[in-house]
This record gives sequence, structure tokens and C-alpha cells, in this order.
Amino acid sequence: MQAVDLAKAYRLLNHGPTLLVTAAHAGQRNVMAAAWNMPLDFQPPKVAVVIDRNTFTRGLIDASGCFGLSVPRASMLAEVMKAGTLSGRELAAQGLDKFDACGLQAVHPVAPNLGDVAGVNVTPEHDTPLVAGCLAWLLCHVLPEPDMAVRHDLFLAEVIAAWADPAAFSDGRWHLPADEAQRSIHHVAGGAFFVTGSPIQSG
Amino acid sequence: MQAVDLAKAYRLLNHGPTLLVTAAHAGQRNVMAAAWNMPLDFQPPKVAVVIDRNTFTRGLIDASGCFGLSVPRASMLAEVMKAGTLSGRELAAQGLDKFDACGLQAVHPVAPNLGDVAGVNVTPEHDTPLVAGCLAWLLCHVLPEPDMAVRHDLFLAEVIAAWADPAAFSDGRWHLPADEAQRSIHHVAGGAFFVTGSPIQSG
Repeated sequence: MQAVDLAKAYRLLNHGPTLLVTAAHAGQRNVMAAAWNMPLDFQPPKVAVVIDRNTFTRGLIDASGCFGLSVPRASMLAEVMKAGTLSGRELAAQGLDKFDACGLQAVHPVAPNLGDVAGVNVTPEHDTPLVAGCLAWLLCHVLPEPDMAVRHDLFLAEVIAAWADPAAFSDGRWHLPADEAQRSIHHVAGGAFFVTGSPIQSG
Repeated sequence: MQAVDLAKAYRLLNHGPTLLVTAAHAGQRNVMAAAWNMPLDFQPPKVAVVIDRNTFTRGLIDASGCFGLSVPRASMLAEVMKAGTLSGRELAAQGLDKFDACGLQAVHPVAPNLGDVAGVNVTPEHDTPLVAGCLAWLLCHVLPEPDMAVRHDLFLAEVIAAWADPAAFSDGRWHLPADEAQRSIHHVAGGAFFVTGSPIQSG
């Protein structure tokens, strides 16, 4: 994975892929799926994501103020569905870990561009996990908008580091492999997805 | 176009397509493109969309409290790009209409399910235009979250009516035509888009 220029980080999400949301706090961690996400600003890059108040991940984000976003490949469809349906809270109550239950691996990449982000108290040795094998990662710091979380389960966050697989995204552009298994995915409902399709260029 | 059950309206946006946002007030109307949109809730259905404070559309939405969302087809790529780059404000100053300038036609469908929506002061003869020829339409009523508009250009809204082309979406499910020109689109940056690709089903 290569670091992505923060000014181009919005492009990792602009086409609307379904994501994996990750968080950790005090020795606990979790992963969930989230189709309800979008860029919110270019520079500094910000994102909006809906995180239901009943999820285990929500508590970890509220406590840590950070979350990760990972862009999964179509080859990870079964794991993404498990992340979207298994309850991290129920697994934790049984002493089980949701990454393990989903067949996903957590990674903690060094964040080379954190030094560029003023006023954010996140060290390069951040605790927030990201998901191994994904097309791209975004490390996010929650913006203080507590009313949005209370009223709409809506989290706004600044992207403080981003990475992508250079085989799929480099120089600020997606060049997804022809192999559909290596493309991003877009959830509709009930396990029905679309794969990201052909590139088309206007003008 | 057929009415879509409001409980399924989120599915029109769940896969992350780029949209056309429309609004009208006091004899003026406008259309713009918006990749930054997402569902926000299931029932009642709500959406979130970023609408820059400098757009002409923004003033019309602030004044009317309503906007439309239309899901364009890949065959409309040139028109979508014009909607994303031409300035409605500059056109209006010249006495020109942005729908015309983009080669788009406004429609005002009767909203059959408005009667089901309590407390929303929108008549079936609403002024908000939608865009002819699109795959789906959502008519939205802005929720009063003025801080979000001021701080983040973010609008939250309730979907009060929805329609889709039954050749592409029916019984709450997308069944997009094989012809890529008839599929939805996902903007990355600078006129580079992806077409919505193959359907895949988990489990």
C-alpha cells in the first residue's frame, strides 16, 4: 500500500463504494460494513458516515475519536457480508473477536503523512485498525458534532492519512484491474451488490 | 416511471450513484450534479447531500425547503458534466436557464404517495423539478439542521416521494439493463466516471 496525497483522498470514496469501518479502544476492536458514506470536503479531506447507535463499533469510535475506512474488493464479498451481519457486541460477550469471525485481518500501517495534519492528536502508532487486503484505507478523526450522532447516527470526520494499492489507484487516479474480483463493490440491499463497472470519461 | 414504496427508496441511492440535484423557487429553477450523497435512514427514508454554498441551487433549496434527486443514465454523461460545471447563477444573470443549457428537461410528476407523509407541507402539485429520462427520482423535504448547512454545506432531508423506471427498478430491486448506456454512473474526479457494473449476490 502506498500513501495517498490527502488532497486526492476524496477520490477513494467519490464513486460510492461500500466500506468496512473499523475502530479500537482499550484493547477492544471491531469492524462493520457501511454503504452509507460519502466525501464531505476536499481539503482538508472530510467524510460523512452513518454508524448506528446499536453497533459495537459506535462505542469504540465514541471512546477513541477515530475510525478507519477500508475499501474492500469483490473477492472479499463473503467477509464483507459477515461484517455487515454478525454482531460485534454478541461476539465480544462470548470472548470472540469480529475480525476473526469474519475472516478479516487487522493491520496498523505507519501513517507517513500524519505530520502534515495540524492539531490532530494521533500518533503514527495509532491504535485504529484497518483491513488487510483492501483496495484503499482512510484513517479518520471524528469532528465534534455530537448532535448529529445523537439525532441521525451521523459522524463527520477529517481524513488524516490515506493509502491505496498502487495496482488499483496511483497518482490520484483509479485504474481498477479488469478482473472483477479485484474491483470495489456497491451494496444495494440484502446481500445484493454491484461491482464497480467500466470507466467512462466525459469530454 | 412508477412510484417506489418509500420503505425501499433508500435502495435507489444505496449503491452510491452520482445524482442530479434540482430545485425551484419563485419562478427560478436549477440543476446541479452531486456525487456526495448517501442514504441517512430507512423509514422514514432520509438522505444526506452536500450542496456548496456558492451554487445557485443552494439558494433555491434554502428558499423552498425542497429538492429533487434524479439518478442519471450513462447515456446522459455529457449533460451530467454540464450540470456539474456550468454555473446556474451566471446563466441566470444572462437570462438563460441551466436545464436548457445542459440539454436537460424538467418534469413535475404527480406524487402519489405524498398523502402518506405526515406533517410535510408539500402538495402533489409541488414546484420542485425532476430530470426527464433518468432511472429514478426522489423528492426531498429539507430537515431543519441549519448548523450543518452553515458549517459543512450538508443538507439532511426526508424523502417524501420516489419513482423509478420499471425497466431498471421494480419490486424494490434494481435490475439494470445489460446495455451500459442505461446504467447509473459513479463520478471519481474531472469527468472520470465508472458505470455501475455487474450484479453479484452474497450467500
